[in-house]
Amino acid sequence: MITSIDPRTGHTVEEVGAPTSAADLDDLCVRAVGAAQELETLGRRGRARLLRAMAAALQDNRADLVAVADRETALGEQRLGGELTRTCYQLELFADVLDDGAYLEATIDHAGDTPMGPRPDLRRMLVPLGPVAVFGASNFPFAFSVPGGDTASALAAGSPVIAKVHGAHPATSVRCHEALVAGAVAAGVTPDVVNLVFGREAGVELVKHPAVAAVGFTGSLDVGRLLFDAASSRPSPIPFYGELGALNTLVVCPGAAQERGADIGAGLAASFTLGVGQFCTKPGVALLPAGPEGDALRRVLVEKVEAMAAGVMLSERTAQAYGSGTAALRDMAGVRVLAGGADGTGEGWTGTPLVLQADADAVTGALTEECFGPVLVTVDYTSPEHLLDLLPTFGPALTGTIHADAADADLSARLLRRLSSTVGRVVWNGFPTGVAVAWGMHHGGPYPATTSALHTSVGTTSIRRWLRPISLQNVPQELLPDELRDTPTDAAGLVRRVDGVLTPADR
Amino acid sequence: MITSIDPRTGHTVEEVGAPTSAADLDDLCVRAVGAAQELETLGRRGRARLLRAMAAALQDNRADLVAVADRETALGEQRLGGELTRTCYQLELFADVLDDGAYLEATIDHAGDTPMGPRPDLRRMLVPLGPVAVFGASNFPFAFSVPGGDTASALAAGSPVIAKVHGAHPATSVRCHEALVAGAVAAGVTPDVVNLVFGREAGVELVKHPAVAAVGFTGSLDVGRLLFDAASSRPSPIPFYGELGALNTLVVCPGAAQERGADIGAGLAASFTLGVGQFCTKPGVALLPAGPEGDALRRVLVEKVEAMAAGVMLSERTAQAYGSGTAALRDMAGVRVLAGGADGTGEGWTGTPLVLQADADAVTGALTEECFGPVLVTVDYTSPEHLLDLLPTFGPALTGTIHADAADADLSARLLRRLSSTVGRVVWNGFPTGVAVAWGMHHGGPYPATTSALHTSVGTTSIRRWLRPISLQNVPQELLPDELRDTPTDAAGLVRRVDGVLTPADR
Repeated sequence: MITSIDPRTGHTVEEVGAPTSAADLDDLCVRAVGAAQELETLGRRGRARLLRAMAAALQDNRADLVAVADRETALGEQRLGGELTRTCYQLELFADVLDDGAYLEATIDHAGDTPMGPRPDLRRMLVPLGPVAVFGASNFPFAFSVPGGDTASALAAGSPVIAKVHGAHPATSVRCHEALVAGAVAAGVTPDVVNLVFGREAGVELVKHPAVAAVGFTGSLDVGRLLFDAASSRPSPIPFYGELGALNTLVVCPGAAQERGADIGAGLAASFTLGVGQFCTKPGVALLPAGPEGDALRRVLVEKVEAMAAGVMLSERTAQAYGSGTAALRDMAGVRVLAGGADGTGEGWTGTPLVLQADADAVTGALTEECFGPVLVTVDYTSPEHLLDLLPTFGPALTGTIHADAADADLSARLLRRLSSTVGRVVWNGFPTGVAVAWGMHHGGPYPATTSALHTSVGTTSIRRWLRPISLQNVPQELLPDELRDTPTDAAGLVRRVDGVLTPADR
Repeated sequence: MITSIDPRTGHTVEEVGAPTSAADLDDLCVRAVGAAQELETLGRRGRARLLRAMAAALQDNRADLVAVADRETALGEQRLGGELTRTCYQLELFADVLDDGAYLEATIDHAGDTPMGPRPDLRRMLVPLGPVAVFGASNFPFAFSVPGGDTASALAAGSPVIAKVHGAHPATSVRCHEALVAGAVAAGVTPDVVNLVFGREAGVELVKHPAVAAVGFTGSLDVGRLLFDAASSRPSPIPFYGELGALNTLVVCPGAAQERGADIGAGLAASFTLGVGQFCTKPGVALLPAGPEGDALRRVLVEKVEAMAAGVMLSERTAQAYGSGTAALRDMAGVRVLAGGADGTGEGWTGTPLVLQADADAVTGALTEECFGPVLVTVDYTSPEHLLDLLPTFGPALTGTIHADAADADLSARLLRRLSSTVGRVVWNGFPTGVAVAWGMHHGGPYPATTSALHTSVGTTSIRRWLRPISLQNVPQELLPDELRDTPTDAAGLVRRVDGVLTPADR
């Protein structure tokens, strides 16, 4: 059975469901294929209504959802309340994306002459890929799980979702699914637009199932790579969008350390310990200028962290991995403990914030990889060239952060260019934790930050993952999708590329 | 040595180069990484100039290029002249794409309040992935080879190209490369923006090389899958865009057969034999209505094909595969030869146009797969339901074609929906051969038509394959790329999404 466990006590609270059998998985896939037809028939406006109804249903169940999620994750009701707000906002933002319609990339080339002779009438737009498998993450039981960004963007695209229930919050997953179904029913749409599977084996089979057209995954590098390999080695390979986390280097330039060292130290302490360090954008390494300014910054950092208590982590597995991961880091040559790191005591699964210092020439192996939880490694650099030499050691990531003041103009411009070539988001004079749901957000990056550098898992453009183009050549007007007709019935706000020029459809 | 062979005689004409060594491949990759920086520094306008200079250099060498390509491929000077025109047009169209700038998806979200609290300033755009490996196809020595669509779109994106020389037209590849280099030099750009590798082994190593960020491939399912697997199983997997060909079903509805049977029969004969059937969009199967109208159409088809001579094929391998492939089809139960199929005689590598008839209940195995060359299989359907039942047998494809008249309204609408779910382009009352280079073209489709259903290998949107997003958070104006500044220096024509709304940058 799939059990729901309280990480504050380590005790099993309830049994939530049984592992999904192969026959049941087949049945869910058949229903998803049927739901895909219904989602496509709904059209943009109908799917926008569906998403808004789902957001409303989640809101209707706010108190219950936050309570069960807190009991399963120990993330706290305030944080989880904010996360649920974000999750509802995300569903509503994708409804706005549908109303906008530009995501379809609707393109009309009327028949005409070209330098190569006559060209037929050609019309292109994006259509749904088909049923999508979603694997949520333990650390965001709402925003990156059953009702999260992958589900919202896939439904918006017109692709039904089969979500693998995360073992760290199965009860929350089931309650969220019930709310989404209630939203679907309120919108007059089949509940089969979102279904759940339980158990690791069913998850792997889901990725391999012929009816599944793509996979959205948020989680660890190990599990992500395993499932990516399964998706890629299918007889008919499918896209696998894995957001796998990262080390997220933060660089403090000398001028910034001098001007704002104490603020940066305090902000850094708050950022890497936020949510017990269980963020994929957690800064895992800070590169500080050697010398008094860097030392002063570090003193504030250490002082703040020494004052912090251990926090309850998401699951036994998370806490154990944090314990063994930090033990390995502490045992490495050239590594010293600056703050924290005493083992948690008492019941439940806890992790204590930890600051390590590593000699620059000792940075190899585990020091260049993500350790999930509240641990930060600081490394001193002795010159701009030393810093730029060190930077590639830490590899591609979801984010890279630069703290720079006016005195750092030359160095910071070089850092921006270098980080831009390896990360998904560069943060300037801030901290990487916190991923806004917005048109301009990119949450991704080159491998191993993700398995698909071309796409984001957060923000409006994440819908592109579940869509493929189609061209219709010389198809009669009455058989075209509305968005591709010369005069759409529903032209409001729609911008298309007509004969090479971006053009509002109502002109 | 890599040899250039005349397919009209089967004789070796010249030695073109030696297989690229591992050390030379490393060197080419290092130079490509350097060229990537130069391409990015050039900016949109500079890369547009580069592409136009390359097109001009190809035009300057037209007579020589067409002659050597004809000697290596036997495709004929008229066809190859048209293909070179198309190749130059393609380079120039990507220059237009760069001038337009919308491909960058530039997005600005100014800092502000949201339902989730304050949001930072976020700016997103697409940036080049890095060096791209290009594997061209035997059947388009210009348009899908060294100077072809993959190269044009990659250079436009800012990604340098290392092209694997195709064994069926190595001399053409080398001459085209010389022209591209001349264009680069004329534009004041490093010649390392395009380089060549020779030999199958170097091709595989190219796909595995850490410096290579993506692969564009046009060719067979077997080789494409092999290289896709190599790209996917790298320590750091990269996108592999393989265009692998397809069966390309063509359906004639009863009303169309009655009204225009003779025209359709003649058009079909011309389409599947065009270029000796060596098009990835060749219609490989035609579904015809059982009865007198279908029979009449077929009589015209057979009559036209009986009058056709054998044609010279691209290479010994192509001709042999066509010979063994058609022999296997002819030996299948339920298959009859309607026209052609006598073996080629005399010197060189020839293929004779062939029309087969297959019983509907015999359609399995090889009859559902592409056979490259001038062979068409016709299958009779006895009712609309029979037709719709048969359709999935033929699987995903680059194209699907529907011939329908007014009397076929209901059936043809159902066919359009069905084909739209499995092909990249639906052709109405036409023939699929001929792929326009246009904004509205999609040349792709679900596996096995391609290895990436999300993307096209032809048309302006093919540039998206070589780009990844990046977000810049709170980065100062003076450090932003011009396209992301509040007031770009070069705003002409640029459309961006600003605070959620598509907005011309000069307003």
